[in-house]
Amino acid sequence: MTLVVKSGGPAALAEWQAHFAECAPRLDVRGWDDPDLDPEDVRHALVWDPDPGRLVGFPNLRLIISSGAGVDHILRDPYLPPHVPIVRMGGMATVAHMADFVRLGAFALLRDMRRIMANQQNRHWEEFGVPRSSAETRVGVMGLGTLGLPAAVALRDCGFPTIGWSRRRRTIPGVRCYEGPEEFAEFLARTDILVNLLPQTDATRNIIDATSLALLPPGAAVLNAGRGSHLVIEDLIAAIGAGHISGAFLDVFPVEPLPPDHPVWTHPRIVVSTHIAAIPSRRDRARFAASAIAAFERGETPPNLYDPAQGY
Amino acid sequence: MTLVVKSGGPAALAEWQAHFAECAPRLDVRGWDDPDLDPEDVRHALVWDPDPGRLVGFPNLRLIISSGAGVDHILRDPYLPPHVPIVRMGGMATVAHMADFVRLGAFALLRDMRRIMANQQNRHWEEFGVPRSSAETRVGVMGLGTLGLPAAVALRDCGFPTIGWSRRRRTIPGVRCYEGPEEFAEFLARTDILVNLLPQTDATRNIIDATSLALLPPGAAVLNAGRGSHLVIEDLIAAIGAGHISGAFLDVFPVEPLPPDHPVWTHPRIVVSTHIAAIPSRRDRARFAASAIAAFERGETPPNLYDPAQGY
Repeated sequence: MTLVVKSGGPAALAEWQAHFAECAPRLDVRGWDDPDLDPEDVRHALVWDPDPGRLVGFPNLRLIISSGAGVDHILRDPYLPPHVPIVRMGGMATVAHMADFVRLGAFALLRDMRRIMANQQNRHWEEFGVPRSSAETRVGVMGLGTLGLPAAVALRDCGFPTIGWSRRRRTIPGVRCYEGPEEFAEFLARTDILVNLLPQTDATRNIIDATSLALLPPGAAVLNAGRGSHLVIEDLIAAIGAGHISGAFLDVFPVEPLPPDHPVWTHPRIVVSTHIAAIPSRRDRARFAASAIAAFERGETPPNLYDPAQGY
Repeated sequence: MTLVVKSGGPAALAEWQAHFAECAPRLDVRGWDDPDLDPEDVRHALVWDPDPGRLVGFPNLRLIISSGAGVDHILRDPYLPPHVPIVRMGGMATVAHMADFVRLGAFALLRDMRRIMANQQNRHWEEFGVPRSSAETRVGVMGLGTLGLPAAVALRDCGFPTIGWSRRRRTIPGVRCYEGPEEFAEFLARTDILVNLLPQTDATRNIIDATSLALLPPGAAVLNAGRGSHLVIEDLIAAIGAGHISGAFLDVFPVEPLPPDHPVWTHPRIVVSTHIAAIPSRRDRARFAASAIAAFERGETPPNLYDPAQGY
């Protein structure tokens, strides 16, 4: 069985092959631009941002695995073979890294990391306090799926009062969960640090806009680790400028890489990271892909299967 | 009863008076430079870095309260009246803020916040992963006292495997505790992120030096939220340069404010913050001071009493 890999460029191929040799020694792992590759041999593909029109050229392709948590980089291929199932990257490593990242973000917003950064950059000694401890700061997690639910639990265990919001009602011990559009305003009104981990769907596009930001209490902060399309950055900047929102930590952007002249890079109240929230190692990804392929080949439903009806 | 305050400068006096009016309305709260102050009236002093020779001029002084967690800024007064007890600032707010700060520091070191900062400053898009999750990273807390013990518990509850080291054996559920000089090397050898919360004593001066850094495993990181005198910064920089230590987060320094030309400000592997780990609000500090004064006046031993024999 041949697995074709398009993730990390040609330089990464040897590393992918070494990792798959450990966890799935019977797989024939080939590069995306391998001149000796017979397209008919390819049964599985592990891809990030595949060139449009290439996947359809593998007539025996049975499973596509995204090398990241999202699938939009695959769905934008207009020639994508419609009947091949797509698996989103996941596994325990992705979940653990995301839970760590949102906790970094929550503590960074709580303790004004942006101000620490500016003081270091300017060599400015400033002994400043912060108004609240974690126990006095409610975190609201939007999206309680594969990544969001464990993140909410991790924040709860850190002692942040934690609430959640999702399309369908979830039950998490110690985390009050809100459901659907009708409970969105109530969720926002109780949220001091808004953590977005929603999937990218048509229903969630621009969901954090001027209207929803205005529903947050004064001094609230925003952590976006979902998708760039969820947040209207101009509205965020305006709400910070108006003094209503105290700051933000953004890991995802509408256009990536974030252009060098984008104003958030230098915004004094916004921490920018570069889509690093949940990057499992290649070893972790190879293991997850191998387990998904094995499940599929046994006739089971692989984990993290993309559902076009739900949009994620 | 008169309380004299030297903390935050003359501009802060009205705020101190307002906070004490809430929690201790019978206290007469006066400024350090109040020209109408009769030195004989002063019974309590809340101070930060008091001018040497001033405290001895209050003949009826019964209690000195430090406006910060340390007392060295008081002890350096050569004329300090030796029989007046000193109370270190504390209370739940200080404990909570310190626990939050060490968690910020641990997640920042785990997720390479210094690299995030540099990328933002340079507008550089870099999707980088990190080798370990919190569950795979052992945190070692040095100092398990008023601040250290709750910090160790908070780190444990975040899912970091957590160990501790202190002069005397402590027992903390889920936290393996090491004791004394003879177990220091074993503690260090098991520590991926070293968190220092020791008190400042002669025995702990320069305790994090080339020798102890060399005992940490390769790739370990250091968070100093104790005192600047605990860490030999030159040894830390050398250990980072040698590739043995991966980075550091420093909140305290031998000389504060940290001089503008000090190399740590611009070090690519060191996050610098400006002695902000546990700054309770003036309201929190007034409440703690009021409760300490009340306990003392009832004839009880006030909390956080400085013990010259222990050195903290």
